[in-house]
Amino acid sequence: MQRYKLTLEYDGTPFVGWQRQENGLGVQQVLEEAVTAFCAETVNAFAAGRTDAGVHALGQVAHIDLEKDTDADTVRDALNYHMKPHPVAVVVCEAVDDEFHARFSAQERVYQYRIVNRRAPLALAQHRAWLVPVALNADAMNDAAQALVGHHDFTSFRAVACQAKSPMKTLNALGVVRDGDTIVITARARSFLYHQVRNMTGTLKLVGEGKWNKKDIEDALAARDRGAAGMNAPPDGLYFQEVIY
Amino acid sequence: MQRYKLTLEYDGTPFVGWQRQENGLGVQQVLEEAVTAFCAETVNAFAAGRTDAGVHALGQVAHIDLEKDTDADTVRDALNYHMKPHPVAVVVCEAVDDEFHARFSAQERVYQYRIVNRRAPLALAQHRAWLVPVALNADAMNDAAQALVGHHDFTSFRAVACQAKSPMKTLNALGVVRDGDTIVITARARSFLYHQVRNMTGTLKLVGEGKWNKKDIEDALAARDRGAAGMNAPPDGLYFQEVIY
Repeated sequence: MQRYKLTLEYDGTPFVGWQRQENGLGVQQVLEEAVTAFCAETVNAFAAGRTDAGVHALGQVAHIDLEKDTDADTVRDALNYHMKPHPVAVVVCEAVDDEFHARFSAQERVYQYRIVNRRAPLALAQHRAWLVPVALNADAMNDAAQALVGHHDFTSFRAVACQAKSPMKTLNALGVVRDGDTIVITARARSFLYHQVRNMTGTLKLVGEGKWNKKDIEDALAARDRGAAGMNAPPDGLYFQEVIY
Repeated sequence: MQRYKLTLEYDGTPFVGWQRQENGLGVQQVLEEAVTAFCAETVNAFAAGRTDAGVHALGQVAHIDLEKDTDADTVRDALNYHMKPHPVAVVVCEAVDDEFHARFSAQERVYQYRIVNRRAPLALAQHRAWLVPVALNADAMNDAAQALVGHHDFTSFRAVACQAKSPMKTLNALGVVRDGDTIVITARARSFLYHQVRNMTGTLKLVGEGKWNKKDIEDALAARDRGAAGMNAPPDGLYFQEVIY
């Protein structure tokens, strides 16, 4: 048996999310069926993060075990061939030790959230960003974001449906940078709660439009109440960027 | 009568190009029909460049004349409303003097060509870049590109169907830059011949993969023969980026 680490890019738009589900097509299913089509083996693919419906990946990481020992580049090309025409690509495939686990070995996960801040609709970035027509102050957002960095109870920023046992998480970094009419929010942590990045984004938007200040972010965090924070930003702007092992 | 300068973004994928044509939908038609839907006027929109089928725009510029004098932001929002669901957006609308002409007043046009240089198929950038699986040396491409800068007879790099009277053009700049697996080629000139940027790109690819060197580019230019240069790169990677007036 050989374990392979797969670095995946996908357009989340047509999927119900990473995970196999009854109600539609998950990225996991596309990948697992490609493995079967390639080498007639049935595998269970484990991923670093279970992205939601509509959420994209630039560098999701998954692992699979194959009985047939095959050159890693061949596995990459074969899976890419069999995943067509779905918008999923194995960008890198590496043979790894059995001890590597895409989910449990991860040291840090990096998410990126893209906002396009303008009146005009999205022509080239449709389903690739959140269009926010009111002017946002990215510097104020970045300053306020620092109130969320560190080890906190993130109850106010997790979905009510979140199944994690503890709401305690350590947010390593949260940065907001503007480039023209695009605002990119980058979040780094060992792990995140369900909807945490999107809820933080929806809340920072309140700061960007001047309705909230940094103190309001601190109060929302201290409230430990989902109702105390801002909206859940749409999935279109969220990218699972990188996993650090 | 009031003239409006429109800065347009569009996804070229579903269009036959900028220009109105019998065989499909042009961006021009979408824009002109939106004007009529907005204010019941029939206009002829003039553009800085007639982009081809599949070619995108980040900053195409067009102008229209309206009898009804309307606030420019209102024109922008109304046209964007009426162009839905087509992937075309008026990013900026400005009231301008009658002497302004989108095509004839242009001092410089900037095109960008995006190559993704990797084995894996494009998941997020489908129809947004040219996927080149063989390794390209972007520094060598950039060095060779300098042989094309300046005032030359670009016969070798224009489509046989090009209707321009003269093949003489002045290429102000041609740069090739790599960022990860993306290679961006930026071309600047007052005007370009038909397919010139795509033909230069297809030819520079030969240098990138080591089949050609700078001398071969010089020879191709000197040959004044379309058959002496490389392939016409696909439209998917081409973006009309900016017009300078």
